[in-house]
Amino acid sequence: MDPLPSGKDIRTPVLIGVDWGTSAFRAYLMDPEGRVLDQVSHKRGILSVCDGDFESVLTDACGDWLTARPGIKVLMCGMIGSRGGWHEAHYVTGAVGVTELAARLTRVPGTGHDIQIVPGLAGRDFSGGPDVMRGEETMLVGALAADAPRSACYCLPGTHSKWVNLVEGRICGFSTYLTGEMFALLRERSILTPLMTHDEPDWCAVSEAAFLAGLDMAAEPSGLLHQLFSLRAGVLMQEADSTALAAKLSGLLIGAELAVLDNATPYQVVLVATAPVKDRYALALRHKGFEPIVLEAEECCRRGLLEIAAAADALVLEHAG
Amino acid sequence: MDPLPSGKDIRTPVLIGVDWGTSAFRAYLMDPEGRVLDQVSHKRGILSVCDGDFESVLTDACGDWLTARPGIKVLMCGMIGSRGGWHEAHYVTGAVGVTELAARLTRVPGTGHDIQIVPGLAGRDFSGGPDVMRGEETMLVGALAADAPRSACYCLPGTHSKWVNLVEGRICGFSTYLTGEMFALLRERSILTPLMTHDEPDWCAVSEAAFLAGLDMAAEPSGLLHQLFSLRAGVLMQEADSTALAAKLSGLLIGAELAVLDNATPYQVVLVATAPVKDRYALALRHKGFEPIVLEAEECCRRGLLEIAAAADALVLEHAG
Repeated sequence: MDPLPSGKDIRTPVLIGVDWGTSAFRAYLMDPEGRVLDQVSHKRGILSVCDGDFESVLTDACGDWLTARPGIKVLMCGMIGSRGGWHEAHYVTGAVGVTELAARLTRVPGTGHDIQIVPGLAGRDFSGGPDVMRGEETMLVGALAADAPRSACYCLPGTHSKWVNLVEGRICGFSTYLTGEMFALLRERSILTPLMTHDEPDWCAVSEAAFLAGLDMAAEPSGLLHQLFSLRAGVLMQEADSTALAAKLSGLLIGAELAVLDNATPYQVVLVATAPVKDRYALALRHKGFEPIVLEAEECCRRGLLEIAAAADALVLEHAG
Repeated sequence: MDPLPSGKDIRTPVLIGVDWGTSAFRAYLMDPEGRVLDQVSHKRGILSVCDGDFESVLTDACGDWLTARPGIKVLMCGMIGSRGGWHEAHYVTGAVGVTELAARLTRVPGTGHDIQIVPGLAGRDFSGGPDVMRGEETMLVGALAADAPRSACYCLPGTHSKWVNLVEGRICGFSTYLTGEMFALLRERSILTPLMTHDEPDWCAVSEAAFLAGLDMAAEPSGLLHQLFSLRAGVLMQEADSTALAAKLSGLLIGAELAVLDNATPYQVVLVATAPVKDRYALALRHKGFEPIVLEAEECCRRGLLEIAAAADALVLEHAG
């Protein structure tokens, strides 16, 4: 929770910001300066809402806030705006910053509340191919509000890691990597699974060494599909320690993702993430010779929701004027 | 079944050859010239034998053959010789050909039958890292017996595809790729799964075009983890046809494997495989400008078992003499 600066004791809630993804739900009650007056988070991501009754999940979590401040604005971001979510918020295209997002909010109809959703982006990856995002655009707006560089290469790791070229505060291209999903698949359901200890690797020296060995392995030209089998062969031939296999796999996959750095515009790298993933990516980036600016993902998301809501209000005033 | 050449009607069984892998069992009753007198195959791979009672599986399948020819030699290859199989056949190392394999057969004790297992190989991949094989060594011996080139780059696709540098009839290095396993994981359990039709892609024109598009995509520098997400983004942004997604995924993964061709010694490529995988790899290799010699994997395996058994007999005679 943000500290309350002395001398400002009136804290009027003006926004309920909701980060609603595939597997998690986080809501924040915020005052105009982004201070968190109350918050709730749980595992009711959109995949857990089988009957389409998203409204109940929201009112279960935030009903008291909605009752106490009738008409309070609710702004949501993430997969809740996808086709499988509550109400589809169509993708925006082109170079996108806070203004473009604020101008394209989608209202959820028929709830009796003022609920809007930030659009996702349909854009171009670093090779000119198709790519999509939902949620990260809001984090990027929040990062900028926290004075992160307006032109930089942003890394937002996760199940589907995003690398974003931000140019003068606008998203001008981004590439998504299946890194987190691939780690889970290989750890839980592959030929490597029986060789692995299933505790989360702790970052003791042996795991860090294995992580870095995996990272270096990814830089070899033999390719990911071979390197994955190599992890197994190394254990069978007793050249590698099976207790650190998950850490090595993590290093290998993050290393495969970091090949993006060869193609990305050589800006400053800004890492927007949450521990423990944040620590792994920071370690990996430093190992590759980058010194990332590191920001907390949840904080960026919250702040982004507030910024987009404020920009939308300003647009309404402008139109009214 | 092999045709019986006219003029040779005495067909005495001399070997039961067994190809016993993770998910399948194939046994052949053969005469000294490799003609198949009888055969049986089913799905009782080693993973399906929970209680370790491999002997029952063998006698259920081949009991009549064993009874009719008491003392007949049984030679097995594949994962049956792994730690999770019937009896561990330790890996051989170094440059390995038929003689080295025949000299290192492992006898299965306590069955009352003459049962031996071909060893696997623990070797070096094309980058000098660890790699292992079990079963493919036998196919390679069979390919050579069928007059395939003694020095060439062999491709043996499958769940774990092998690329082998064969030099003067000996395996001098090989790299394994997780291609088939990765295809199954991504098709059945990933973010791509809901987008795919689950019929086996048929090789009509649309699938072939999608397969080749995936193959070309793999040659781009953006990396496999990004390209996999791209498949999804292409469908969401309606730039790609979801009905051909499995074919495109297959092309992408095989394309990622074929990057090996940049590192492999530029010999003739020999493809040892079974349809439909054989057809995809042949198409992919031709698309990359290679004209592979194509051999049938099952036939190579059967013939390899016969060759290794004969070489082992010759060694015994040599020692006796």
